[in-house]
Amino acid sequence: MQFMFKKRDNIKEIEEGKCLSPKFDENGLIPVITTDFQSGDILMHGYMNDASLKKTIETKEAHYWSRSRKKMWRKGQVSGFVQKIKDIRIDDDQDSVWLSVDIGNGASCHVGYRSCFYRSIPLGKIKNSQELAMEFKEKKIFNPEKVYKGQPNPTKI
Amino acid sequence: MQFMFKKRDNIKEIEEGKCLSPKFDENGLIPVITTDFQSGDILMHGYMNDASLKKTIETKEAHYWSRSRKKMWRKGQVSGFVQKIKDIRIDDDQDSVWLSVDIGNGASCHVGYRSCFYRSIPLGKIKNSQELAMEFKEKKIFNPEKVYKGQPNPTKI
Repeated sequence: MQFMFKKRDNIKEIEEGKCLSPKFDENGLIPVITTDFQSGDILMHGYMNDASLKKTIETKEAHYWSRSRKKMWRKGQVSGFVQKIKDIRIDDDQDSVWLSVDIGNGASCHVGYRSCFYRSIPLGKIKNSQELAMEFKEKKIFNPEKVYKGQPNPTKI
Repeated sequence: MQFMFKKRDNIKEIEEGKCLSPKFDENGLIPVITTDFQSGDILMHGYMNDASLKKTIETKEAHYWSRSRKKMWRKGQVSGFVQKIKDIRIDDDQDSVWLSVDIGNGASCHVGYRSCFYRSIPLGKIKNSQELAMEFKEKKIFNPEKVYKGQPNPTKI
């Protein structure tokens, strides 16, 4: 990668300018929200480093930083569920990214759901966590044991 | 707050169970995506700590952790743009939260836009950051100098 992002040196420019000056955190990462460009549904929340953001812009395919595997990760490399970029947005202070992607009839979640956000939290006054029974809002659309056969589970305690 | 979230001790339960076991990062925070329940548009990306997540669940109004002010923050306290919770979801490994909220005709972004994600990044091969001129996709709907008069700007270099 040859290009550099603009240095962050002016708050007005960061908020109101046209130059991309992303803020990477103390681990060199920026959080990423990924939505389905057709339904608008949130598919996943991930992270990118400098190189994966550049790679995503240039290749128009989503590349993330895997915190569990500690490496850049082309989404769909194993599963085939590649994310084709339709739009990339950045927020006011340029410390988070929104990808709008095309995954066709594919999925995004390694557990087997289309979206990672398949559970809804009950609202209102609660006494203890046992009462807090979440509701499943989606059905699995693929079998992760077949699709990710032999791969380690990215979920960590 | 009296209740505790369930301890994270089993990956299968974290991914497939009904119990809420959020994972807070090394700073005690969990990232939060907030969308408009009517349009589905992403409004903002923020953070919560343990107490602000509980407060949000119990009061049905969005409370975040402000990293710049280092305190819990009831969204709309100053601006009046309160976020009424319609749904809260958590992702597969329970390390990010999605709030679907009602803000009526209000706004979410301290710069004056309805959504914080008002700029789109051009895609494709680029030589240097000067070529990377972002496109503004929204118009401002309020004057932040009036609404946030005397308040410090949360954006940091």
